[in-house]
Amino acid sequence: MSYPDLLSIPIALHIPASELTALPPASSSEPREPDDPTPIQELVSATLASRLYTYVCLPLTTPKWKDRWSRMCLQSPLGAGPSSGEDGQALGRDEQVEKEAEEWRLHPKFEREEVTVTRLEETYSLIGMVSAWLELDSPESGIRYDSELALRQELAYATYLDVRTVVLPPPRNRANVADYARAINAILNDSSFGSYMQLAVRIPVSEVEHRTGGSPSGLGPGKMLESPGMKSPQIVLSPEAEEGGLDSAWEMWDVIRTVCGYNSRLSIVLDLSPPFPLRPGAMDRWSAEPIRHIFLPATSFIPNAKGYPVLAKANQTFLKEVMQFLPIFILSKTQASLHNAGGSKGYAEYVRFLEKTSVPLQAMRTEGTLESFASTYMDRVQAPLQPLMDNLQSSTYAIFERDPVKYERYEEAVYQALLARGEQETVICVAGAGRGPLISRAYKAIQRVEGPKVTIYAIEKNPNALVTLQERNALEWGNAVTLFFGDMRSVELPEKVDILISELLGSFGDNELSPECLDGAQRFLKDDGISIPSFYTAHVAPLSSSKLYNEVLHQTIGDEKKNAETPYVVMFQATNVLSGEGGGVRGGCGTKVQECWSFEHPRRDLFVDARGLPFSNTHNTRSAHLTFHVPHSGVLHGLAGYFEAHLYGDVSLSIHPETKAQKSNNMLSWFPFYFPLKDPLYLPANAELDVHLWRMTSRQKVWYEWYAESFLPVPAQSPPPTFGFITPQSTGAPNTPRQGSTPVRPPRPSPMLDASPSAEGHAAFVDVLGRGELSRVKIGQTSLHNPGGRSSWIGL
Amino acid sequence: MSYPDLLSIPIALHIPASELTALPPASSSEPREPDDPTPIQELVSATLASRLYTYVCLPLTTPKWKDRWSRMCLQSPLGAGPSSGEDGQALGRDEQVEKEAEEWRLHPKFEREEVTVTRLEETYSLIGMVSAWLELDSPESGIRYDSELALRQELAYATYLDVRTVVLPPPRNRANVADYARAINAILNDSSFGSYMQLAVRIPVSEVEHRTGGSPSGLGPGKMLESPGMKSPQIVLSPEAEEGGLDSAWEMWDVIRTVCGYNSRLSIVLDLSPPFPLRPGAMDRWSAEPIRHIFLPATSFIPNAKGYPVLAKANQTFLKEVMQFLPIFILSKTQASLHNAGGSKGYAEYVRFLEKTSVPLQAMRTEGTLESFASTYMDRVQAPLQPLMDNLQSSTYAIFERDPVKYERYEEAVYQALLARGEQETVICVAGAGRGPLISRAYKAIQRVEGPKVTIYAIEKNPNALVTLQERNALEWGNAVTLFFGDMRSVELPEKVDILISELLGSFGDNELSPECLDGAQRFLKDDGISIPSFYTAHVAPLSSSKLYNEVLHQTIGDEKKNAETPYVVMFQATNVLSGEGGGVRGGCGTKVQECWSFEHPRRDLFVDARGLPFSNTHNTRSAHLTFHVPHSGVLHGLAGYFEAHLYGDVSLSIHPETKAQKSNNMLSWFPFYFPLKDPLYLPANAELDVHLWRMTSRQKVWYEWYAESFLPVPAQSPPPTFGFITPQSTGAPNTPRQGSTPVRPPRPSPMLDASPSAEGHAAFVDVLGRGELSRVKIGQTSLHNPGGRSSWIGL
Repeated sequence: MSYPDLLSIPIALHIPASELTALPPASSSEPREPDDPTPIQELVSATLASRLYTYVCLPLTTPKWKDRWSRMCLQSPLGAGPSSGEDGQALGRDEQVEKEAEEWRLHPKFEREEVTVTRLEETYSLIGMVSAWLELDSPESGIRYDSELALRQELAYATYLDVRTVVLPPPRNRANVADYARAINAILNDSSFGSYMQLAVRIPVSEVEHRTGGSPSGLGPGKMLESPGMKSPQIVLSPEAEEGGLDSAWEMWDVIRTVCGYNSRLSIVLDLSPPFPLRPGAMDRWSAEPIRHIFLPATSFIPNAKGYPVLAKANQTFLKEVMQFLPIFILSKTQASLHNAGGSKGYAEYVRFLEKTSVPLQAMRTEGTLESFASTYMDRVQAPLQPLMDNLQSSTYAIFERDPVKYERYEEAVYQALLARGEQETVICVAGAGRGPLISRAYKAIQRVEGPKVTIYAIEKNPNALVTLQERNALEWGNAVTLFFGDMRSVELPEKVDILISELLGSFGDNELSPECLDGAQRFLKDDGISIPSFYTAHVAPLSSSKLYNEVLHQTIGDEKKNAETPYVVMFQATNVLSGEGGGVRGGCGTKVQECWSFEHPRRDLFVDARGLPFSNTHNTRSAHLTFHVPHSGVLHGLAGYFEAHLYGDVSLSIHPETKAQKSNNMLSWFPFYFPLKDPLYLPANAELDVHLWRMTSRQKVWYEWYAESFLPVPAQSPPPTFGFITPQSTGAPNTPRQGSTPVRPPRPSPMLDASPSAEGHAAFVDVLGRGELSRVKIGQTSLHNPGGRSSWIGL
Repeated sequence: MSYPDLLSIPIALHIPASELTALPPASSSEPREPDDPTPIQELVSATLASRLYTYVCLPLTTPKWKDRWSRMCLQSPLGAGPSSGEDGQALGRDEQVEKEAEEWRLHPKFEREEVTVTRLEETYSLIGMVSAWLELDSPESGIRYDSELALRQELAYATYLDVRTVVLPPPRNRANVADYARAINAILNDSSFGSYMQLAVRIPVSEVEHRTGGSPSGLGPGKMLESPGMKSPQIVLSPEAEEGGLDSAWEMWDVIRTVCGYNSRLSIVLDLSPPFPLRPGAMDRWSAEPIRHIFLPATSFIPNAKGYPVLAKANQTFLKEVMQFLPIFILSKTQASLHNAGGSKGYAEYVRFLEKTSVPLQAMRTEGTLESFASTYMDRVQAPLQPLMDNLQSSTYAIFERDPVKYERYEEAVYQALLARGEQETVICVAGAGRGPLISRAYKAIQRVEGPKVTIYAIEKNPNALVTLQERNALEWGNAVTLFFGDMRSVELPEKVDILISELLGSFGDNELSPECLDGAQRFLKDDGISIPSFYTAHVAPLSSSKLYNEVLHQTIGDEKKNAETPYVVMFQATNVLSGEGGGVRGGCGTKVQECWSFEHPRRDLFVDARGLPFSNTHNTRSAHLTFHVPHSGVLHGLAGYFEAHLYGDVSLSIHPETKAQKSNNMLSWFPFYFPLKDPLYLPANAELDVHLWRMTSRQKVWYEWYAESFLPVPAQSPPPTFGFITPQSTGAPNTPRQGSTPVRPPRPSPMLDASPSAEGHAAFVDVLGRGELSRVKIGQTSLHNPGGRSSWIGL
């Protein structure tokens, strides 16, 4: 195998503690020269020399360290209050161990035999594993404290050795994961650990937690690290795992990264040791998370017919998908001879096979695909173009003119429109001609039709592009085109036209002010004239993406929060659409991607002034109130935006994920739109998300505002909530109709809402309707984004 | 009645449109000189001249305006998309009305007859009511748009007239209240409306919505404004009200103020026209909201035995409580002769009666009470003292020495301790003597006991206070006290002592580093010596308060978010504790106020060095994980903090709301602690709030970090969720125990969690245990506050 190319998936070999302990100790009495490689250095060199592996993944510490820590910290736990102190006395604690522990707490440090790596050179290709037996989320505060101290000691040593990536122990206890998270956040913000080390949290892929002992006081032998699937035939659930519910693994990760403020040095080692979940959609959420490593033990492989190690279908599918993010695969137990064929190399070779059959990875490597075209733009937020305000550069035009699909569609639309006109003479106007791609296509369509005479007018407001148009008119179009310089909302044409062609659409349809421009241009369209495009719609979907959240937050040094007050254009990669197909638990939710609003051209009902221009722009305001069903718990970071446009006849353009392949496959011109959120919004499984989006207009500008509220369906049933209120009218005040005994139907309540009625006073108690039905309670909201158009589209 | 004093409750008289239309129109043909008062001016003058009222509350517009707006905007609704345009054509719309509407949209303005007030002088004492028929939250976007335009027109006119307070129409439609909120926020951020006008949103007191017609198309006669209780004997619920549930009124307010970013110019007119809720706790939440006006129509009064208008008990209780915030009472329908006695003045006189019997208001007006002492500190956040780092000023000592309760309690504790020692000689040390209040009280206790010899040592690190101590020693204590200058952690005493007295407690107990100081001082305490205090505990409760949220956010010009990274000391007033008594829906929640941790002195199990000082400060770290039950929906803005301290015997100090009256009533020295949140956290009714609080220590400092997660109980029942996963071991890989058929107990799921299992692959389907039980799902979280001790207590 040749040296892997830059886009190849890096593979690391995990060398477990058992293999290291089999080595002669670095401190052995066997004579070595100071410059001789250590046994571990030799092992690492040999591993890398095979060219199968780019990295080696080692535990940082030896069992000796665990022995000392356990003796100090479990026999003399840090007292948390006077009661534990009393216990200590009652048990007759060992003063000497206590003193040793306190001295360690004051000056935490290793002995030479307690660490695996002792030399700088060994760390060149090293991924260091922190002691997996540390219980940063132990229910016992003393053990948490001493675990955190030990963690800091290990990371301080890793920092000293310049280890670039460390793997942290997996969080195990949902109830105390906030303690784990707080400890990690403290390290991320502590400059004494440098500012480069990646902290990779080991997260089991399935929500079922494996426990094979390892209780806080017993401190099991770190089986989690040693691939528990091998040694623990029974899956035993801790009570905490039950409490956390199905989503506990992801939920624990979410707490950690939220508490750590989405620190970009925090990532996931997705541990495929536990059973792989088959539930539909269960793995989707991981694509929106920073998975930098995949931990893949030999035990997760199954033998194929010939005995070679392979992975099950669902597992393959997931890994091929996730390979587009180029994670490091950490292979483990390759030496354990678990499979009859393939040997220890079989696992790495299988990863290379997956890599070659990964569709997204191969698409990125293939010239001419959207993935290849967009590969450098993946998850990079860009400010949308404002072509009405800014005159574009020639190079910008050039990029868009390269789109192989968009202009073909335009040509087809013009062709069909001309065919439909039959023997009539036709006047065409291209409004916003740019460097001429639409003129060129219209010209071709005219030639294909071979019909009666067609006149072409073209309007362009960019004086620089007009030079190109003049050139092309002379060289390509035989001066058949009459060019007009100016804004389509003020320029005058010699006659009314039959077909008005424009390409003013943005990623969200109307965001480059196509409605405003075409309203101003429709005055030179004949009464039965047509606009290409004739109709377009804007669509949104709720999106999760740690990557995009970080991109928006950290893109400039300015006010972080202001970065979230404007929409962006972005090629989505590490993202996950949170909504499911329609209905939801209560019914009534919309589909996965929903339409916000539409615009039609020409707009016949427009009220216009003497020049044919709209009186005001109020008719282009829009608002949308959409309800999404969120089947799996997740974190909302923003809204994905898309458009569909109908050009003419059966010709459309679309970047809508569900229709783009059918309507305009491989079109490159538009990346999706992205409305970011200032603060992430947590959504539990089966939540309903109400999204409010407004298109606002004033005399000078156009802008969007957005806002969301989250709800959770709850059953409306027993205990029947009732409630009472004073009805003063029933006490006989003059001139007031009596109503005290009128049965009153209250709002439909749910047991999640306030219960316990009060029986006092003039109260009417009311029984409850609708038992057994589902109601919903509000659970959260975002702030209003971009109020008043801090970020807006100017040029009206 | 004399002119009301500054603390008196202002009363406004509401003059409804019906009374105004009875006036001769300002534009009537009756001859008037330009300087003559208008009929409205005369009415206002007469009303204020009665001295009953400080303000007059008037509608800003006349029915003529409503007529024109309705004609324009309901007959020619602003089209939202092409379909409405087609409808318009189909209906044969009136081009003239359409043109009028479009011209109005371009240049919104009033005719003279459409407004009630035309002169600047009329606005002196005026509260202006915006047209209540405007439907800013109509389900129809065109009506919303034109309502917003009309609202802006009315507020622009109010701005022109310099009206300082306007009352906005009540939100009516939960589904579209975000539209209402967005419109108000745009006005608050638009400098063309000035920067002083208060926008008061009319919110009905009870969650039952009154609908008496007023559908969007029908536009009822604004009965909401005219006190619907009078005219609508039947309470009719709109479907939206049902949807929103019991809490819809407050929930709509919450959406509005959140969307408006807690703008301080936004407040509530609490409308007492609807039935008054009796549900326990239903009114508590309003004490945490900016209620600046109470709308109280005569219809809400009941007649007493003599026929005078009075209010029902629950109503009285609420109003007496809310009076401490000095809201303006707006009385309405006082002329309608609804009661047999008292006349039109009877209502205002009853408000004055309530005022005189309002316990919190009278307490604020009575010299010597805590309320009077604290009246200028209410809801003002202050940085806690750091007496270990800073030397206090003499005036600061003086304030605390004025406490009538605290030092009496200390004297009693010393007295009891001396009595308990019987005939033994005693050595007392006052550690941190300040200006001597504890010495003084110890001296008195010694004299009361009249026992054997007592030696008094006193340690003080503030060299300036030491001068005062020397003076008092000479003048008051007959030089009986031996004074030592220095830090109690380093000073040396000539002998060990029997009683160590200190007053190092902060509002949260340990926050002024009492544990660290006393750990350093306990080395000169005899083995059987006692510390006064001997024990103290810190307590928290979840708190809601718009006022405190705004205080913290806007207290400095610096980074708003950083203000929320430090705890404060604050006298709570406009606050509401969100937690209920223990248990909760699922059981297992703690009480309303919960203990975080405790400290005991002396700490006998401390591991100390040769000098008797602790080896490290790790034993003073603490962490708390508390679960609160939140019975009613609300918004969490922070945590209230309190302490209790046991001095000696049966003598304690407490600012815990449930024990302070019993343990140390009227103690002034400590206001509660407040841990703010950067961003408010919405909590639905019956939520569970998990609060994490840490007391962190390093060698140089001590600090707190805090974090919270919210959960909602959901029933764990049908449809039974099951799930499957691949168990590759079951396929016969060598050396792997078979486990495919092992029954596996999954985490206990709920119907709110992911359902729909997948049946494919090597999957084990598992039935669900615990049906009918309650589980909980996470619904939200805060960020981690003060990580790494950005704000800390320094001086170790």
